[in-house]
Amino acid sequence: MVTIEKYIEKNKDRFLDELFGLIRIPSISSETAHKDDMYRAAEYWKKTLLDAGADRAEVMETKGHPVTYGEKIIDPEKPTVLVYAHMDVMPVDPLELWNTEPFEPVIKDGKIWARGSDDDKGQGFMHAKAFEYMVKTNSLPCNVKFMIEGEEEIGSPSLADFCIKNKEMLKSDVILISDTTMIASDTPSITSGLRGLAYWQVELTGPNRDLHSGLYGGAVANPINILCRLIEKCTDENNTVAIPGFYNNVPEIPAKEKELLAKRPFSKEQYKQAIGVEKLFGEMGYSTLERTGYRPSFDVCGIWGGFTGDGPKTVLPSKAYAKLSCRLVPGQDHNHISNLMEWYLKSIAPDAVKIKVDYLHGGQAYNCPIDHPAYIAAEKALTDVFGKKPFPVRSGGSIPIVAAFEEILEVKSILMGFGLESDAIHSPNENFPLSNFFRGIETLPRFYKYFSEIV
Amino acid sequence: MVTIEKYIEKNKDRFLDELFGLIRIPSISSETAHKDDMYRAAEYWKKTLLDAGADRAEVMETKGHPVTYGEKIIDPEKPTVLVYAHMDVMPVDPLELWNTEPFEPVIKDGKIWARGSDDDKGQGFMHAKAFEYMVKTNSLPCNVKFMIEGEEEIGSPSLADFCIKNKEMLKSDVILISDTTMIASDTPSITSGLRGLAYWQVELTGPNRDLHSGLYGGAVANPINILCRLIEKCTDENNTVAIPGFYNNVPEIPAKEKELLAKRPFSKEQYKQAIGVEKLFGEMGYSTLERTGYRPSFDVCGIWGGFTGDGPKTVLPSKAYAKLSCRLVPGQDHNHISNLMEWYLKSIAPDAVKIKVDYLHGGQAYNCPIDHPAYIAAEKALTDVFGKKPFPVRSGGSIPIVAAFEEILEVKSILMGFGLESDAIHSPNENFPLSNFFRGIETLPRFYKYFSEIV
Repeated sequence: MVTIEKYIEKNKDRFLDELFGLIRIPSISSETAHKDDMYRAAEYWKKTLLDAGADRAEVMETKGHPVTYGEKIIDPEKPTVLVYAHMDVMPVDPLELWNTEPFEPVIKDGKIWARGSDDDKGQGFMHAKAFEYMVKTNSLPCNVKFMIEGEEEIGSPSLADFCIKNKEMLKSDVILISDTTMIASDTPSITSGLRGLAYWQVELTGPNRDLHSGLYGGAVANPINILCRLIEKCTDENNTVAIPGFYNNVPEIPAKEKELLAKRPFSKEQYKQAIGVEKLFGEMGYSTLERTGYRPSFDVCGIWGGFTGDGPKTVLPSKAYAKLSCRLVPGQDHNHISNLMEWYLKSIAPDAVKIKVDYLHGGQAYNCPIDHPAYIAAEKALTDVFGKKPFPVRSGGSIPIVAAFEEILEVKSILMGFGLESDAIHSPNENFPLSNFFRGIETLPRFYKYFSEIV
Repeated sequence: MVTIEKYIEKNKDRFLDELFGLIRIPSISSETAHKDDMYRAAEYWKKTLLDAGADRAEVMETKGHPVTYGEKIIDPEKPTVLVYAHMDVMPVDPLELWNTEPFEPVIKDGKIWARGSDDDKGQGFMHAKAFEYMVKTNSLPCNVKFMIEGEEEIGSPSLADFCIKNKEMLKSDVILISDTTMIASDTPSITSGLRGLAYWQVELTGPNRDLHSGLYGGAVANPINILCRLIEKCTDENNTVAIPGFYNNVPEIPAKEKELLAKRPFSKEQYKQAIGVEKLFGEMGYSTLERTGYRPSFDVCGIWGGFTGDGPKTVLPSKAYAKLSCRLVPGQDHNHISNLMEWYLKSIAPDAVKIKVDYLHGGQAYNCPIDHPAYIAAEKALTDVFGKKPFPVRSGGSIPIVAAFEEILEVKSILMGFGLESDAIHSPNENFPLSNFFRGIETLPRFYKYFSEIV
């Protein structure tokens, strides 16, 4: 039988060509101008799955962007793996910081440079190609289903509903996802937990129009001054979130996990260098890996108001806006946190301004036990290819739908990510190393084999 | 002799046509795209002065935008009034809030609607027409000089230098300025003081690129979070500026002036209604008029950073910016305050971010004694036209060059403003009541007459 390594060697140029076709579709789910591109991406995925050997594949409507579903059922008695990936990508601004066109993939320095090269077109595409290999070589050991959605980057607002409506069709023994990172290209890891998310937009209104800051300055509430005050009061001098009740149900980190964390290879110096900062900054009393893996956070994602052009225009503005986000951990319910934030901001805002708090989206945190059959299968597959046992990692990122899968489809997800922290996902100059792309394809058929043996 | 009232009646349409020609030139001094418009405005003023009867008028270069100078010397032994006005205007954004085109004046509801209709094309033009009347009717009692600058809205960066170089040419007994407001259309006032100004742009840099707020959130300093913290720490819970040393040399308000202030007609309800706020907000222990007239202030004029488009993009941004301003009072030196702010912000910024503080411009506060001959002449002229003695008013606004005039030209300025607070200067839908425009023209020849008699 042709090994996966040889199959890749023979087909690598075609694999990349096909991936690049997908990347070239600017499927930015948050921008309405790209609505048609979401359908183009969905059709592209449908063709990809059919060409790879799916029995059926179709573009299915949701109340938002479409989902591409595909499957190959070899034997209803055998176990079923449901692959989840997303075809949508983040916006690309600020465009001036990109070295290449975001939607025209370029290979340079052994990496693919493009929006979506990693998140999640590159990582998602590995599954299509591993599936193709198993079909073409008659080595598929179980049934496979694919669910590729188009709204992950906006919080998957339609997918829970889609899962409820298609629960029988989506029945599986595990959900397999590659949308996370590994520790380093030579240090594999499995994401055993994800943070949840809560995201708000806040609008403050002071006077009914922009005022002369000389004539009125000091006598009228300036909505930017007040907004800064509200944001400042969301954290305290220890960089702890200062909203009363925010940490209710947040467990302390178990001593055993603290030990495991301390063993993980982690260079603070390299971490700082990679992002160009002289000092790290966060909640007092916790390490960097604890802060991102086990502790919730509060970040302003955007802020704007008043005069932002060149020069010294003096104005006391009418409006100020901010986009606020919290990453949450198991124990915190995003709906509860949503209400808590709104209550808190309104309770501390002076009545000299009007305040509007909109909850834009949220999702629950997730945790996968390391003795789950899928975890063990993933561990073995990664050990085979990388020659090292992978570490379990609690990621700071959020895939809100993963917690929803567990609730609706009653099945655990296994998060085998092949991205690197240096891939700059969500940022200008997103990239994905070719070696990670190909090693991902090498690893996946092994996962199917071990999982089918264990289950 | 034809009275000024009759002269206006006969020529009012022409006066407005000529003013509208000036308004139609989009002379926004802060935007480099309008550089040529500054020359067009300067030439327009030159023609206006020559047509009105100036002996000479010319467009003079400075290191920035040009100044139009004009004069009529009837007798070197007689007193000289130097009229100062500015031909430049503020930017017009946000454009979508204007009901009419900013640079196409419209008369509606007895007002002229346009950028510059009040500040300072409308008010400046009154002086040209009052001068024209006195020349045409041979009633000019003294020498007149005009200095019309093009950089007032960006802090007059070239005018001090221009005054130093042309000190002899600009020699006068008083500088006459209409660039302020009166209390109400039936309640005249004279601006006896102006606040100074200090204006900074702050740039904070966290990571060297925008980061994924999930993977990094909680472990890396977010420059927006930090910027809000720095801004919050510029004031305290009493809305007092919290920068150590900021109030050094700020005098308490004399008991006598407090009494005069309390007598001034001022309706808190109308003030709030005019700007659409339910509550006023400012330094504890001071009234609204005290806050804007006698106390310094701290306002954020603009803020921006991170994602500001539609939807919930999660990002931990690399940069955050703010434009900060303080209005200052006599006793505070703007250069000292500039240094103080920079020192303070840098001293409280954590070293997990890089901070850059640029001083964009500043000017000193000003005070004019109410027993000065020009004040007395203005008081009489206004009493003649309005039938009421004007109140002395400390304005919250700044005309930084007025303090410089006193220092360089060694002469006091008299601030006879005919604007109203409802004129929305610096805002969308700037306007100027026709009645104020014409009563201004009526008042000014009387000022010349009384001033020449007293001096």
